[in-house]
Amino acid sequence: MSRGVITLTTDFGSADYFVGVMKGVVLNVNPEVQLVDLSHEVASFSVLDGALTIGLNYAFFPEGTIHVVVVDPGVGSARRPIIARTAHHTFVAPDNGVLSVVFEREATLEVRHITADRYFLHPVSSTFHGRDVFARVAGWLSRGIPAENFGGVINDYLRITIPRPRRLNHQQSEASVIRVDKFGNLMTNLRREDLPERISPERASFKIIIKGREIARLAASFAEGSPLEPFSYIGSSGFLEIALNEGSAAQLLSAGPGTEITLHISDPNQP
Amino acid sequence: MSRGVITLTTDFGSADYFVGVMKGVVLNVNPEVQLVDLSHEVASFSVLDGALTIGLNYAFFPEGTIHVVVVDPGVGSARRPIIARTAHHTFVAPDNGVLSVVFEREATLEVRHITADRYFLHPVSSTFHGRDVFARVAGWLSRGIPAENFGGVINDYLRITIPRPRRLNHQQSEASVIRVDKFGNLMTNLRREDLPERISPERASFKIIIKGREIARLAASFAEGSPLEPFSYIGSSGFLEIALNEGSAAQLLSAGPGTEITLHISDPNQP
Amino acid sequence: MSRGVITLTTDFGSADYFVGVMKGVVLNVNPEVQLVDLSHEVASFSVLDGALTIGLNYAFFPEGTIHVVVVDPGVGSARRPIIARTAHHTFVAPDNGVLSVVFEREATLEVRHITADRYFLHPVSSTFHGRDVFARVAGWLSRGIPAENFGGVINDYLRITIPRPRRLNHQQSEASVIRVDKFGNLMTNLRREDLPERISPERASFKIIIKGREIARLAASFAEGSPLEPFSYIGSSGFLEIALNEGSAAQLLSAGPGTEITLHISDPNQP
Repeated sequence: MSRGVITLTTDFGSADYFVGVMKGVVLNVNPEVQLVDLSHEVASFSVLDGALTIGLNYAFFPEGTIHVVVVDPGVGSARRPIIARTAHHTFVAPDNGVLSVVFEREATLEVRHITADRYFLHPVSSTFHGRDVFARVAGWLSRGIPAENFGGVINDYLRITIPRPRRLNHQQSEASVIRVDKFGNLMTNLRREDLPERISPERASFKIIIKGREIARLAASFAEGSPLEPFSYIGSSGFLEIALNEGSAAQLLSAGPGTEITLHISDPNQP
Repeated sequence: MSRGVITLTTDFGSADYFVGVMKGVVLNVNPEVQLVDLSHEVASFSVLDGALTIGLNYAFFPEGTIHVVVVDPGVGSARRPIIARTAHHTFVAPDNGVLSVVFEREATLEVRHITADRYFLHPVSSTFHGRDVFARVAGWLSRGIPAENFGGVINDYLRITIPRPRRLNHQQSEASVIRVDKFGNLMTNLRREDLPERISPERASFKIIIKGREIARLAASFAEGSPLEPFSYIGSSGFLEIALNEGSAAQLLSAGPGTEITLHISDPNQP
Repeated sequence: MSRGVITLTTDFGSADYFVGVMKGVVLNVNPEVQLVDLSHEVASFSVLDGALTIGLNYAFFPEGTIHVVVVDPGVGSARRPIIARTAHHTFVAPDNGVLSVVFEREATLEVRHITADRYFLHPVSSTFHGRDVFARVAGWLSRGIPAENFGGVINDYLRITIPRPRRLNHQQSEASVIRVDKFGNLMTNLRREDLPERISPERASFKIIIKGREIARLAASFAEGSPLEPFSYIGSSGFLEIALNEGSAAQLLSAGPGTEITLHISDPNQP
């Protein structure tokens, strides 16, 4: 048995023993493995939020890490369990699009439909495949059982659409908020490359309209920003975020996932 | 020193450092051990909820696992600390009934009163035996100190009554809700064997009355159920549960632990 | 690579993947290390609460433990990242006073300004040094890179003032609440040595005034106390605490961090 890392990402929260018992099942198969909680606060039933959570973070883990992702409103229905392998990571999840961000970031990709139920915990419940299927399969994978043993390759796995900014014209794009963190910081789907190449704090070269409010400031850090006036910055996942310094932009702006924003880029030829 | 698994189950929540420092104490005795949180959201001071949490889940962990269970409203009083050993697992807990579900599931059982205070962390506080007694004893057990060394066998350990369905006549039983999970699913104390042997989705063979509402549907999965109309299913712990698909039955029905339900079984001889 | 323990203390909460991805970064550097969450519910942006959280608990961990403490409202500004070493423990944190309680408890202390950015994760974000700086540095330290390699010794590191009781006269002191736990127990900044040497339950030798209410009872355990009448006791961190038995003193008294209290000591020469 080898040590190795298995991460868990779910919408199970911490109020119950669901995550704890999944770990018991993994350790029953491989007591040497190192278990890491990536997040259990994915928005309930939100495949999109799950896709962002794993997609923005898996690459920070060691090569060879196995990521179990269980946001699974279709548990017990015909939706398939899958193993997805990229050059450096392995994923175990339901086939409902929760790996879509991983899929779009990876050139090398092999997806298998898990059909070998000898690796499951029997009797398999109809409501908790996190325990009876996904945790168990991850345990066996971590012990070196080859992915081939679990089922055949498929190509019709599900991808969901990740909301993208929409360019209206040279100077305007429609975008949206995709996540809110504990501090009330709003992650948008705008990336650095959607902004003008040269941004100077002295001269606003773009502005964002959110909930009727204009934000023209791109701060380099929270400390530079105001506790009262929302500002933008490039967040740690590479997306433009909107925040207050030691305050909640989500609360001030009554904004959350899905809130629309408009990006206006100044004409560089105008003085 | 050997690796090995220690689980922690408490009502300490996550707002404080209580669980974290218990882990420090365990690792100070045995830095090689693998620590797993089963749940820290047992309802505050609820020995019954603690008993269900550990009792429904310990068997999923590897043989040899040590389970520390601290739901301990009597901390600092005369209630005894105990070690309970079953054929495959070891438990460290206060003697207040929090292991009652374990006790009723296990044929082989040895319970010891922990009296050897040389294994405690001194000075022992009067309010945090999770840290000063239970974590520490678990650490020593995981290092191979025999249970005998901690104190003598007792037979008068406490058991609490787990609420059971009560049969009123051939067709009716009174039962109750015993847990609510994060999604608002209601776990009842009815088991599969309390229901008619043959259940067909075409013809209701039983119904449940909860808060004046009738539920006649036994779904095979959440996906089969409705988001508006509560349905029942056999949950992953073997109990009948009541749920909405992607909604909270607890909220819709204003139900929670202790809510009474009635089970009506149709007369199989009636058309 | 050696096993060893790294603890994490932050104000990141559990709603996001921030803590999870920090663990990924540590394991990427040292997959053998044991990660322990001390607490992630430090009050947002509260350097004082962070200082208490780590300061009251680090000594329970094994010698050689590395403690990562990220309560970091100044992230991305000029505030320095530091490594602090005491006789038995190592700390990685921002230089904002969050190690002040550690500093005052330790005679042997060496503090270094981390400047060797070859140990950082690049590009270093301006908002998440927990991931890009602190987790990464802790990973390298746990692999045996000497502290000297990260930067030079400094002496002008920041200390914040921990609120202390103020003696008004022989019989009265002004003190305050410094923490509230999940159960609503109020930790004050009074220590055992601030109370009369001999305390008997029969004869009140001191009383506490909080929110206009008198508390004269020093209970030995929760079980001795009342669910309706607040009482005091010496808590597990050595401070006087105020509680109800199975109830919330914080709620009953509308008290929290910063609430002022007065300690009155009876004149021992008076009958």
